[in-house]
This record gives sequence, C-alpha cells and structure tokens, in this order.
Amino acid sequence: MKPVDLILTHGNVLTMNEKLDVIADGAVAIASGCIQEVGLTQYVVSRYAATETISCQGKYILPGLVNAHTHIPMSLLRGLADDLKLDVWLIGYIMPIEREFVDPAFCQLGATLACAEMIRGGITCFGDMYYFESDVAEAVAQTGMRAVLAETILKFPAPDAESYVHSLAYTRDFILRWRSHPRITPAIAPHAPYSTTDEIMALCRDLALEFEVPIFTHLAETPAEVEESQRNFGHSVIRRVAENGLLDAPTVAAHCVAIDEGEMLLMKQKGASVAHNPSANTKISSGIAPIASLLEMGVNVALGTDGPASNNDLDMFEEMRLATFLAKTSTGDPTQLPAWQVLQMATSNGAKALGLGDICGSLEIGKRADLIVIDSRQLHNFPHYTQSNPLAVYSQLVYAVKSSDVLHSLVDGQWLMRDRELLTIDEGQLYQESQEYADRIGEFLSNRETDVLRKLVAISMGMERGETYEVQIKVPIADPWIVEELFDQEDVHILRSVHYRQYDVYFHFEDANAGMVRYREDDRIGANDEVTSVRSRLTYTNPMSERSILGSVILSHSRFYSLADRPLRFYREYFHDAQETELIKERRRWHIQFREVPFFVHVDRVSQPQLDGHFLEIKSRTWSAEDADAKAHMILEMLGVLEIDPANIIPLDYIDFPDVDQPGGLSSSST
Amino acid sequence: MKPVDLILTHGNVLTMNEKLDVIADGAVAIASGCIQEVGLTQYVVSRYAATETISCQGKYILPGLVNAHTHIPMSLLRGLADDLKLDVWLIGYIMPIEREFVDPAFCQLGATLACAEMIRGGITCFGDMYYFESDVAEAVAQTGMRAVLAETILKFPAPDAESYVHSLAYTRDFILRWRSHPRITPAIAPHAPYSTTDEIMALCRDLALEFEVPIFTHLAETPAEVEESQRNFGHSVIRRVAENGLLDAPTVAAHCVAIDEGEMLLMKQKGASVAHNPSANTKISSGIAPIASLLEMGVNVALGTDGPASNNDLDMFEEMRLATFLAKTSTGDPTQLPAWQVLQMATSNGAKALGLGDICGSLEIGKRADLIVIDSRQLHNFPHYTQSNPLAVYSQLVYAVKSSDVLHSLVDGQWLMRDRELLTIDEGQLYQESQEYADRIGEFLSNRETDVLRKLVAISMGMERGETYEVQIKVPIADPWIVEELFDQEDVHILRSVHYRQYDVYFHFEDANAGMVRYREDDRIGANDEVTSVRSRLTYTNPMSERSILGSVILSHSRFYSLADRPLRFYREYFHDAQETELIKERRRWHIQFREVPFFVHVDRVSQPQLDGHFLEIKSRTWSAEDADAKAHMILEMLGVLEIDPANIIPLDYIDFPDVDQPGGLSSSST
Repeated sequence: MKPVDLILTHGNVLTMNEKLDVIADGAVAIASGCIQEVGLTQYVVSRYAATETISCQGKYILPGLVNAHTHIPMSLLRGLADDLKLDVWLIGYIMPIEREFVDPAFCQLGATLACAEMIRGGITCFGDMYYFESDVAEAVAQTGMRAVLAETILKFPAPDAESYVHSLAYTRDFILRWRSHPRITPAIAPHAPYSTTDEIMALCRDLALEFEVPIFTHLAETPAEVEESQRNFGHSVIRRVAENGLLDAPTVAAHCVAIDEGEMLLMKQKGASVAHNPSANTKISSGIAPIASLLEMGVNVALGTDGPASNNDLDMFEEMRLATFLAKTSTGDPTQLPAWQVLQMATSNGAKALGLGDICGSLEIGKRADLIVIDSRQLHNFPHYTQSNPLAVYSQLVYAVKSSDVLHSLVDGQWLMRDRELLTIDEGQLYQESQEYADRIGEFLSNRETDVLRKLVAISMGMERGETYEVQIKVPIADPWIVEELFDQEDVHILRSVHYRQYDVYFHFEDANAGMVRYREDDRIGANDEVTSVRSRLTYTNPMSERSILGSVILSHSRFYSLADRPLRFYREYFHDAQETELIKERRRWHIQFREVPFFVHVDRVSQPQLDGHFLEIKSRTWSAEDADAKAHMILEMLGVLEIDPANIIPLDYIDFPDVDQPGGLSSSST
Repeated sequence: MKPVDLILTHGNVLTMNEKLDVIADGAVAIASGCIQEVGLTQYVVSRYAATETISCQGKYILPGLVNAHTHIPMSLLRGLADDLKLDVWLIGYIMPIEREFVDPAFCQLGATLACAEMIRGGITCFGDMYYFESDVAEAVAQTGMRAVLAETILKFPAPDAESYVHSLAYTRDFILRWRSHPRITPAIAPHAPYSTTDEIMALCRDLALEFEVPIFTHLAETPAEVEESQRNFGHSVIRRVAENGLLDAPTVAAHCVAIDEGEMLLMKQKGASVAHNPSANTKISSGIAPIASLLEMGVNVALGTDGPASNNDLDMFEEMRLATFLAKTSTGDPTQLPAWQVLQMATSNGAKALGLGDICGSLEIGKRADLIVIDSRQLHNFPHYTQSNPLAVYSQLVYAVKSSDVLHSLVDGQWLMRDRELLTIDEGQLYQESQEYADRIGEFLSNRETDVLRKLVAISMGMERGETYEVQIKVPIADPWIVEELFDQEDVHILRSVHYRQYDVYFHFEDANAGMVRYREDDRIGANDEVTSVRSRLTYTNPMSERSILGSVILSHSRFYSLADRPLRFYREYFHDAQETELIKERRRWHIQFREVPFFVHVDRVSQPQLDGHFLEIKSRTWSAEDADAKAHMILEMLGVLEIDPANIIPLDYIDFPDVDQPGGLSSSST
C-alpha cells in the first residue's frame, strides 16, 4: 500500500483524457499535489493508503474548468452600465472609469473578488489580461488558483503606463518576477491589432519568445474590425498578425468571430488557440464565432467568460451551454458541438491553449491535482440516464448542472473550496471592500451623469476652454455682397476666408441648468461647390448670462470644445439628451482685423429651420467684460459703414427664431 | 393599523407594474393571500400590523416568474438523449418512450419533480401542455403553484386517447372538473397545425370559447414547418390558423421562429401572445425568433423554458439571459431587449399571456400574493451600482442572478419555499421515485439499443413479419431475354411484372449477432424509362442459418419489413450502424406461378458493386422447411427449362461478391 494524501472515492469520474474515459465508480488518489492514480475505486483503495479518504457517491469528479480569457479586476465594474453599444459602453463608461480608478489596489481587490466567484463556479485555472498584472498576480497567488496572467500593452497611454515603452518595460520586470512561481505564468497581451501597431506586436512576440511565455490578444472580434483592417492595412486581421509574426509565439486569440477558412488554416499551422467567449460576443452583438468549423479544421478552441463587466459573470457552465446552443443554431445542425466536446473545450483544450496541457485540464496520472467535485443529485439534474446513455453524463454537466452545484475545488492538491465554503478567501471582507469601491465609482458616475460637462470631459481626448465673452450681432441683409464694402475699408484686413456647409445638432437637457451640447459637422466647400474636407466638433456651453449693449448681444458663459471623433449616434446614446434641435446653414466666413482687432464676419443662409434671405453676423470673443463692451462699439461702427440700421438687429440664435410656419413667424412677417 | 398576515420589509422591490416602479427600501403587505400594500417600508409598517414581519434587507422582492410554455411531466426524460436531430430525438426516442411509459402515475410524478425545480428557480406560475392533464392538475394543486394546464390534442393516437375524439371528450371533462379551482386554469392544446387538422383546431376553438379558457399551441417553430404549410395548405402557418379561426380564442403560440411582419400584425390584431423559448429553439437549431420586432409591433411576448427533456432544465434565469443575448446578436444591436424588458417578458407579459394579467405578474395592490425573494448578496452579483444606475437592478437580475439565489417563494400568500427549503414537496421521495422511473426507462432503452429489431419496432408505424424461409438461386446469364422461354411454358402464369431501379443500403453492426437492416429505395420505371413512383422500405433480418439443397440456397431467419417514411440520414443517425454496404441495380421482376406455386423471377443488372452482365434470380418464400425443399426442386426444374447448368449457381448475395477490382474477383475471372 503506497501512502498518499487524499483519495476521492465512489465518484463518477470524467477524466477528460484523450479517450474521454468515464469511470462509473471511480477514485482519484493525490499525493504532493499530484495525481497518483485514477481508476476504479476498488482498485485504487486496494493499492493506496490515504491520510484522508472522502466518498464522492452521487457526485462527479472532473478536472477543474479552465477559463481561457477574462479580465478579472473588472469584476468591480459589474453591472455598471449594460444594454449599450460597444463604443458607448467602452468609451463612455469603462475607459473614463479605468483612467480614474484603476490602480494596484483596484486590481488586487477585483482579482480576489473574481477568483472567489470562479472557485465557487468550478474554475481552477484561467487566463487573464489586464493592467498592473504584477498586483493581480499577488492576489491570485494568495487564492491558490492557477493562472496565466498577461500584462496589457496598448499604443495609447494605459492606466499603468504612460506609453507602450513603459508597458513593455513593466512586462519584462513582471515576467522576471513571476516566472518561477509554481502556479502563476506571466504572459504578454498586446491588446489587439487595432489598438497596437505592427512594431508593438513584433516587440511583444520577441519578448514572448525570449522568455517562452504565451501571447494573449483579441483578434477579429467583429466584422467591422476586419473591414477596418482590410481598409487600413490591406489585410484581414488574422492575415495581418500572421504576416507581422505575432503568431510565431504561442498565441491565444480571443473571439475570432470574423474568421474565414483560410485564416482558420493559418491559425492551425501557427499552432495558435482560439478562446471563444459566447456570452460577451452575443451580449455586445459582435456575432457568433464559427466554432464548429474551427474544431473541424483542427484548431484548438478553448472557452472563456471574458471580463465580468461585459458578461456579467464568470460562469463557465453558462458559457458551455451557450457555446453549444450557438454552434447548433448558427449551423442549423443540433448534432454540432455535442456536450462532450464543449466540456473538452472547457477543460483540456483550455489547458492546452494556456500552455498547461501537461499540467492540468484532465485527470491523468502525473498531472497536478486540479479538480472539482460536483453534486449530481440536485432536482434540476434529476433523474439520470447514465446507465442507458453513455453520453448522458456530459449532457447532465453541460445542459443541467449549474455552477452552484460545485461542492469542492482543489488546485495542486490544496483545498480551495470544501462543501461550498471558500478556504483561501475571506468573503465577508471582500463584500465590504468591493462595495466601498463601487460606491466611490458610483458617486463619480452620478456626479458625472448630472453634469454634462463632466460627461464630455470623460470622453474627450483633448478639450479646450473658449473665451468667456462672446459679442455678436445678427441682422437680415438683402444683398449678400454688401460685405465687400466693409472689406474695401482701409482699416480692415482679411486674414482668412472659408466657405462651409454646417450641420448642427443641439442637445438640450431636462435640467435647464445642465447647459447645452452642440454637435457640429463642418463640410468645407471648394471652388466648384465640392466638399473638400469634413470635421466635427462638440461645443458645450453652460447656462449663460446675457446682456445687450448698443444692439450687440454680449454673452458670458463657460464654453468648451473638442473634436468629435465618434458618430452623432454615439453622443445621442451617451448624453441621453431630452430634446434636440437641428440647424443647417451655408456659411461664408471671413476672419478679419478691424483696426487690428480680430472679428469674424459671417454671411449665412439657413435652410433648417427654413429662413428666407441672408443674414450677416459679426462676432468676436474675449476674456474681458470691458473688452466685450469695446468690441460692441466697433461692431456698431462696422454696421455704420454698411449703412445697416441697428434697429434691424435680431437678438436671437437661429434655433430660437419663431417657428416659420406659425403666424408671426419670421418668414411670414418678413414677406 | 390594519391587520395583515405578513409584511416583507426593507427589500429592493421591483414591482414590474406598468411604470416599472422600483422601491429601494420597500415593503409588501399580504393578507388573505392578496397584496394589501406595496410601498416604502416606513409607510407600510406605519399603517399595517402584521402577524409576521420578515426583513428582506440585501434582497430583491419581485413577482414570481411566469414560465409561459413547458411540458412538465417530461422532466422524467431529462438527459435521455441529446445532441440529436429533431426527428431522431422525437421519433427515435421520445415518442416510443411516451407510448410505453406515459400514464397517470408518470404524469403526476414528472409534474411534481418539475414543480419542485420551478419553485426552487423562482417560478410561481406556468403554462403546461401535455397528456393526462387532469393528473398533472392533481399534482400541481398539491404543490401550491399557480398554473394553466392544457390538454394536448393530436390527429394521431395519443398516450391518453385513441383518437382526437376521445381527447376532446377528455378535455371537456377536464375543464368541467378543474375550472373552479383557485389556482388551476384548465386549457386546450391543439398540438400544432401540422399535427392536427383544420377541423380539430375549429373544435378546440369552440370548446375554448364555450368555457372561456385559453388555447396553447406550437406555431411556426421552424422555417421548414412554414414551407410545408405553404406547400400543403397554400398558407404560412400563422395565416392558416388566423384563417381557420383558431386565433379567435385567446391563444398562446409557442415559438413563432418563422414569422413575417404581416403575421406579427395578425397576431397583434387577434390578441394572441407569443411564448418565446430560446433554449429549446437554439438547442434543437430551430432558429431565433424575431422577438425585438414582435415587441416593437406591440405583440405580447412571454418567455418559456419548453419541456425539460429538450432544454434540459426549467430555469427562467437562463432563458432571460439567452433571450436578450439572442435578440442582441440577431439584430446586431446590443441595445435591443434590455434587461428591464426581458424581466417584463418573464413576469407581467407571462401573466397576461396566460389570461392572468389581473391575478399575478406584478406587485400591485389587489393582485394575489405570488412573489419571490432573491438574495442579492452573492459573490457573482457583487458589487452593486444601484445608486448610480437606475437600470442596474435589472442588469443584476438578468445578467448575474442565478436561480440558486432565489430564497423564498409564495403563491396566494402561501409559502412554497422558505430559505431554499421546499415546504409543499417531499424532495427525498421525489428523488427516489423519479430515479426508479428513469431506471425502468433506461432498461427499456438499453435493451432496445442492443437489439436492432426493437429499435426498428419502436419507430415503425406498422411492421410486417416475413416468412421464415427463403429459397433462391442466382446465376449469371448471357442473354437477359432467356426468361421469355420460361414464361412461354404452359404451366407458367405471369401474375405481374414490374421494372425497378433499386438503391439499397445495408446497415451492419459491430455485434455480428445483431442482424442487419436494409434501407431500400424502389424507383419504379415506366415505359419511357421515366420514374413513375418511389417507395422506400426497411427490412430487418436477424442472423440466418443457411443450407444448400440442389444448388438452391435455403435461408431460414426472422425477417421484418416496414415502410421507411424518414430519410436515410435519419436511420443512419438512429441505428448508429458500424458499417454500410451499398447496392444499386436495375431489376425486372416477374411474379409468376409455376404449377400454381408462386415464385419471383428477377433479371438484374448490378452497377454498384460494378458486376458485368446480367443475373437471373428465382426466389420463393415459405413458413415451412419441407415446403422450402419442395420449392428448391421446382426451381431446379425451371433452370432445366432454361438449359442452365446448376454448376453456375452463385451461392452469394450481391453485396458479398468478391471485390471486382481484386485479382480473383468476379468480373476479372469471368472475362
């Protein structure tokens, strides 16, 4: 009788070895964190003497599940914002919050919270991709889980690095610090081809090859990403990374929703694995990855939950069900991705993807003792047809078992959970600390939600503050060429002139004090009436005080503007405006100096709202109230040159003109 | 202070009323099974004095979930067979087992098992459709749940009725017996348009209108069903039932996967509801129902689990997640079917569909007290952003809560579950009895799986046993017209002659004693070489004993044949044959009498395997060994007439001929 530490007996053992052996009254013997024997209970107990023997009657014993792709610190952001378009969610919510809150403490706490959830759901091993991974590693090491942790590298500044040069240096240190840990493998995550460069990917690959660590990345998550790659690089996403050498290092590619057969073959030839994330792909409408074809092509496909901010949980049982449902539906063939195969994705394929194929992922002699025990006697999983149908045991695990049925979890032979009690993590403390974080983030968000300017700041790459005072007059003119008389004056110099077609949308909010956001598209018009360039800008103005002097309107308010790099739809969904006003006009604009003082002169023709004739605007901006008054005087002088009666000045914005179709509206009164 | 029975205090109350009011520190007061008050805790406790007050701090209080479509007794068949095509699953497994096992005891036990699972998963009300619904009602009434139970009506014999006339009579009795029960509503379920007739549907509608009970049916579950309806009735499925008047009764239509906009409008005009079953639709590859469009069109859409044999559980939380994921993916828009709307489908829309909109489905004063309490403080649901995001509470319920988080359940104010303990059902007894059933069914299946004949019997609509003895000779002939000489004989009468092209596939099994199945397609050939009719037959033969007499081979074996009404692919997947042999031949067949004894004369030309020349077969069948010997003598006489040397007789079936491409093969040796 050989001595061992632990024998689990009388269980239904799903080995998940290559032959998919299932041992009906089976046992697993464990010594020094390693699997010593797997076999019939009678055989195992007759050969091994254990310090502790636990009966698993009425239970399944199987390898711990492997979550091949996630972003665990994001557990702290679960439920923050859902049912949104990807860009609104990411740029409007997640990125501003990451900029504000993601630091070592956030990552450690989020990692621990996520590990607790994963252990309770039968996951013993996972592949992570986030920031401050050295801190993530500290937290994960304490939980006793096994993990491959990949530091994220972006071409932009990241929460933990000013630039990708710093990220790469951080990653090298991280690898050196963690590479000899028994359960943690450091790795490198160039975030995605669209968010890195060919140079960054090459540097990541070199680092991966130097230290023999894996590469994690996001590839071909949406058809739009592939189209953009085609446009910008002349290659689809996967062909690009095959070409630039990234796949020469062992790679786990998350998503691969938009992949063709040639690319599948490339993935296979390069030995790259796919991490399929069905919940995240469907929740965010990325599409359905062609998993049945990938598997048929011989690509190693693993399964992941993706980050808990987008999913919103870390439940591999839900992913297994969804993976097979989607494969069946997208192929129209219910025999696709049968239960045994999806369990393989969640165990042995996952281990293989993470480079741990010899370490875990199946119950085989010599592998580390990473395993879970599941209660098969729950109402929702009753009765059992295991006797008559050899595949029923897989059906039960994939189609009926819930994560709450997982009873025990061991990694390296160490108990992480016993009878659903976590042994390496203090749950009570987790609840409290994570809610404290959420309250702070929630407060930040609440303030922002009620403050349009803060919301704008949160998503702007760069924002400028405009001068406080605007001086302006607006007046109808019969002849648009009248302005030439002004420009003929000796003390007037034209600095610049331009012709625009301008499309404005004004966002108004329920709270009248919230200010106003204007989205403006400027189409610059060339000599032949063609559009020569387009730019879009956002302008925020807070409620203004207004006074009139000499017929000029002097506005005083805060005014901020930034480039608008997202479509109008984005801002509409992001700002939740209560009401919108549209303004379309043709504008000829001159930037002039009148006695060396700068002014803008506009000749406008407004088509939305439909206003008859032309309007002249003269405008200037300044930081000083006194200067504003002085400029109002100068504008009056210019009107004099043009022989315009100040009584005709209209002290309104175009969008505030009375409705033209109403009696008393401007166009009817002017005819 | 008004007296009440129970107040639940300090919960996060999701009323699911029309305005979707959420009360952060809310309470619900219950008296006589009815909701007396819903409001802020402070307000409710200041006005009502309760016999019992329970704090629900850190918990959600919401209306019990409504499972709008299921077949609960099928819980006993969970995991029996999965990952199969619909026809193999239904005709190969479910229907034979239903024929054999479904009786009142089965239905009562299965119903109780399913109710136990549903209560544990937060379901308080459901719509069922099965057989022996009066027995189902007995069981459901005892569990304390609320239900609308619809007796199934088919054009075929059902497990509880010889014909639809009996089903309708049963249904009338069932309605009379149960219609005044406080929690059970009897209803009528014409199974589907393809499995009933216009007449049956009209009779069902009349019955529904007579008693004011709902109609449940399956409509447009697959695109194939709609195509078939178009072919057979000149209408799509939903237009057909709108036309034949079924929808004039209040109808819940399960599935509606293949529905166009005109049909959506029809459903809306008729006031019919849709029961969406995302798990079942995807698991069996039926497709994705256009839920976003249906809701936009104003159709009332509820949510269901479908039967637990096809799903494989009764978990509305899984259905909610999947419903929104599918809506988002199929529209490409992640803002579709937001969390609040999918929870509405699972509560108030469900109640409305079942005709219980005034009774349950929301927490409102005057409705019955059907409600659940859910623990919001589980790791997988932490932290909470309820403060900053008013929709977060719906995100948590739909995207993160699991059915195992449901703590309490009440129907009509009666406790069904308290702190996850079932109060109206004995779980231990359920486990034992349901496993006993499964063992019997499993044994039936195991025997059948190892017995090809039993498998064949299970799926045949009618099967004939053939004579035990076959007498036959086979001989190559140079001139196919030689047979005319035989027919010219005075004691030979031709009864019938026919020209076939025959395509045979032989299924062989690993166990040589298992027998053999032949799938034969007979294409009958007309005068101009056109195919005039096609029929397919299955023949099963068990291992034979064989002897030779006077050159004739006399086979003695059991032989069964039946019409093959399914495609070859079905039988292949159903029988799991180990090996297949293909035989294609052109056969001219004469049914003759030789001295008033019947014989078959065949002139065959075999193209697969490729055999040169023609073959003559003379064949007869009999129940008697002596008669077989006599017939062998007569065959020899006929050969004499044709001057054929019995030495040329080949004692082999065509499929057993030596491989023609091998040295020593027939064609090479005969040239």
